Amino acid sequence: MSVTSQLRSLSINNINPNVKKAEYAVRGELAVRSEEYRARLARGEKLPFDKVISANIGNPQQLDQKPITFFRQVLSLVEYPQLLDHGDVLVKNLGYKSDVISRARSLLKMVGSVGAYSHSAGTLGIRQSVARFIERRDGFPANPADVYLCAGASSGVNTLLNIICQTPMTGVLVPIPQYPLYTATLAVLNAKCVPYYLEESKNWGTDINEIKESYKKAKDEGIDVRAIVIINPGNPTGASLSPEDIRAVIEFAAQEKLVIMADEVYQTNVFIGKFYSFKGVLRTLQKEYPGKYDRVELASLHSTSKGMVGECGHRAGYFELVGFDKAVQEQIYKFVSIMLCSPLVGQCLIEMMVNPPMEGDESYELYKKEYDAIFQSLRDRATALHGAFKEMEGVECQDPQGAMYLFPSIHVPPKAVAQAQAENRSPDEFYALRLLDATGVCVVPGTGFRQRPDTQHFRTTFLAPGTEWVGRVKKFHKEFMDEFR
Amino acid sequence: MSVTSQLRSLSINNINPNVKKAEYAVRGELAVRSEEYRARLARGEKLPFDKVISANIGNPQQLDQKPITFFRQVLSLVEYPQLLDHGDVLVKNLGYKSDVISRARSLLKMVGSVGAYSHSAGTLGIRQSVARFIERRDGFPANPADVYLCAGASSGVNTLLNIICQTPMTGVLVPIPQYPLYTATLAVLNAKCVPYYLEESKNWGTDINEIKESYKKAKDEGIDVRAIVIINPGNPTGASLSPEDIRAVIEFAAQEKLVIMADEVYQTNVFIGKFYSFKGVLRTLQKEYPGKYDRVELASLHSTSKGMVGECGHRAGYFELVGFDKAVQEQIYKFVSIMLCSPLVGQCLIEMMVNPPMEGDESYELYKKEYDAIFQSLRDRATALHGAFKEMEGVECQDPQGAMYLFPSIHVPPKAVAQAQAENRSPDEFYALRLLDATGVCVVPGTGFRQRPDTQHFRTTFLAPGTEWVGRVKKFHKEFMDEFR
Repeated sequence: MSVTSQLRSLSINNINPNVKKAEYAVRGELAVRSEEYRARLARGEKLPFDKVISANIGNPQQLDQKPITFFRQVLSLVEYPQLLDHGDVLVKNLGYKSDVISRARSLLKMVGSVGAYSHSAGTLGIRQSVARFIERRDGFPANPADVYLCAGASSGVNTLLNIICQTPMTGVLVPIPQYPLYTATLAVLNAKCVPYYLEESKNWGTDINEIKESYKKAKDEGIDVRAIVIINPGNPTGASLSPEDIRAVIEFAAQEKLVIMADEVYQTNVFIGKFYSFKGVLRTLQKEYPGKYDRVELASLHSTSKGMVGECGHRAGYFELVGFDKAVQEQIYKFVSIMLCSPLVGQCLIEMMVNPPMEGDESYELYKKEYDAIFQSLRDRATALHGAFKEMEGVECQDPQGAMYLFPSIHVPPKAVAQAQAENRSPDEFYALRLLDATGVCVVPGTGFRQRPDTQHFRTTFLAPGTEWVGRVKKFHKEFMDEFR
Repeated sequence: MSVTSQLRSLSINNINPNVKKAEYAVRGELAVRSEEYRARLARGEKLPFDKVISANIGNPQQLDQKPITFFRQVLSLVEYPQLLDHGDVLVKNLGYKSDVISRARSLLKMVGSVGAYSHSAGTLGIRQSVARFIERRDGFPANPADVYLCAGASSGVNTLLNIICQTPMTGVLVPIPQYPLYTATLAVLNAKCVPYYLEESKNWGTDINEIKESYKKAKDEGIDVRAIVIINPGNPTGASLSPEDIRAVIEFAAQEKLVIMADEVYQTNVFIGKFYSFKGVLRTLQKEYPGKYDRVELASLHSTSKGMVGECGHRAGYFELVGFDKAVQEQIYKFVSIMLCSPLVGQCLIEMMVNPPMEGDESYELYKKEYDAIFQSLRDRATALHGAFKEMEGVECQDPQGAMYLFPSIHVPPKAVAQAQAENRSPDEFYALRLLDATGVCVVPGTGFRQRPDTQHFRTTFLAPGTEWVGRVKKFHKEFMDEFR
């Protein structure tokens, strides 16, 4: 312990050890270094590249994805409602359509002012709109009282894990690879991550036997496993689960009384096949086998940050609870009350995401055009990047099914592994740092998501426009392989 | 345990016990009942009152406080930047001033898009603006690297307590009465609240001897006291601390190596005397006694939710760290990264709060007029409500110094105390429920903030417009006293 730290209340040796344990590589060393490069380029310094590409984080609008016009026009009006007194100017001079104006009015009626706190679980009218969306999506009823608006799905996951984690021996099944929010939050809560591996050879699908084995092993170690996390479509894998896989998980959860946490924030980012919601599959099962699945507890999460909406900075999400005990829901309400409510502008965005302009509405044509163009362009870039990986020596990449990511495996040559060890880094970190230094492209090493022992991966978004940066990655990879051959 | 709960993973008996322990009365039973009354009135039901007055929560815009025009005009532009292509229309048809337009442009230059994630601690340019504000306010330098933007001060408090709470024996000195965020968060973190009483007879000021005694008692019980919370101006008390009181706290914190958490969200809500920031007083002390206070760790919090800004729904705040260890700050950065960043529109609001239109700017006149009118009206209502309390039998109320609250003490008659006990309620809860049932005015019983044993209080905001509701309270109080005489 240094003299300095002894003179203070807080030092690295005496703060919350659970916070210290938490790891969150998405914004770790590589991200910090990439920001330094960005700043140096801005100061006019010469580097081996002209531009930093932040492929480490699913942040579409940072990478020039344009917001959807309808959403932002409505938000401009809820921010400054006096504009509604100038309907003529809005329509004639500024090109606002009448449904933009009417949507702003109806949102303002629901929230009062976006500057006021709402109900802790979110504005009732917006939760009602979410419930109607879920009903349309799944074909089964949804109850607004079971919908909780939150500051991004991350905040919802935080709430749910805070409720679930009872003791240091509470365990939660988490897919590996996983988005590190889950392991980081379990670390902060001093609970156990019970890892189960996804099947890379089966396009990163779930393998129910793998899940069962992990569960059994944890139980044998005295871990009280209480929940299972599923990320569908997958992050970092991009996998899109089949209804059969989902059924198997639900059946297992029903049998072992596990809460299912279905992280479904990428539900519209599906390029191969289609999205099946856990709620829809669960309700279908309940219909097919009356009584058998009545007690299944499901929390499904969605967000405005992903999909074609891409509004990360507005920090908006929701979760729907199915089958939860009423007394437990009261504790969830109290817990979210401590932070008062989620951002109101974000709540308005949620409403528009779940209830966008429909055919016949004045804004529909532009909305559809913008939405489809974003979808198309994401799919094209996913396919192009996937194609590039296919051509690289020692790189394997599963089909670009969905989400915003590819998660290729890389066979790092033994000489590079040795040098990584000498630098006290994992081989994939070594690779990703070299990639960043050479090309300005920032990805996240597989270590940040965990991976099977002795495998190496990295996660890259396919959000960056153009293909020039993909060329840079290919060139780097060849040189890297040649250097360490 | 019911059969139902045994069939599920989660029941009230097996969720996180720390969450169960947490209490948050500001949105508790009374608030829920008041919302029921509001819904019943909306359905046309007849109740003893026509309108529910939510005096339980500092939510200005719910109670018809108008947002400041400059802020909202700028936000309309950052939400829909295409409006900037129509500068003429904005100026000629919609009354936007040129500084509104230039502010929106400069904010957009800083954030890129409000739909993109920012740096985890907030957009650098905005943190720089906050640092300049702190410099102007205190007359001492501030470093943007020590400023963290957060989703309201509540989120900042959550971050800081997560870092500080090391073991179940970690203690934090908390003023009583206090805003229940502190006790609730300490409960969730399974750490110890070390209460110290404020001096009601001295306008709810701090008494350093009281603090020292609480500290000593806690140490004797084996509690590792690591921090002291000060809420200035006070919530729920409205107290405004003198520089002498602040100096005494800093001296004590320096001596015992305690982090000072200065909750200064009401810093512009001061009606009697003036606001002294902990940072300013600390820097002055450091100048007067070189070396003696160099290691003091101070976290000071501010927010856009209070003051004349009143933008609670945008969930924006910041904290500045002074004297913190670098390695500890790295852990804080990692911790806030897990939730990615605070809402970007809120970040923009922070920038405008700390850097409002200045004399000579086109928007200045209107800004000043609106700001002063809100200030004046809050002061007038505080004074009027205080006057009403002075006239009520068995009610005592300290001077309306600041914040948004009065916290009168009420001498509940013995007969009412007996009936409260029969209903298994504290006397102040009993009083507040009766008040709500009779008048529709929702306040928070003193129990929700804790109070000295055998004293009864309630907290009411003075945000509700008009005086009619104050008359209702007076009438109820007289009838209550008569009933239980």
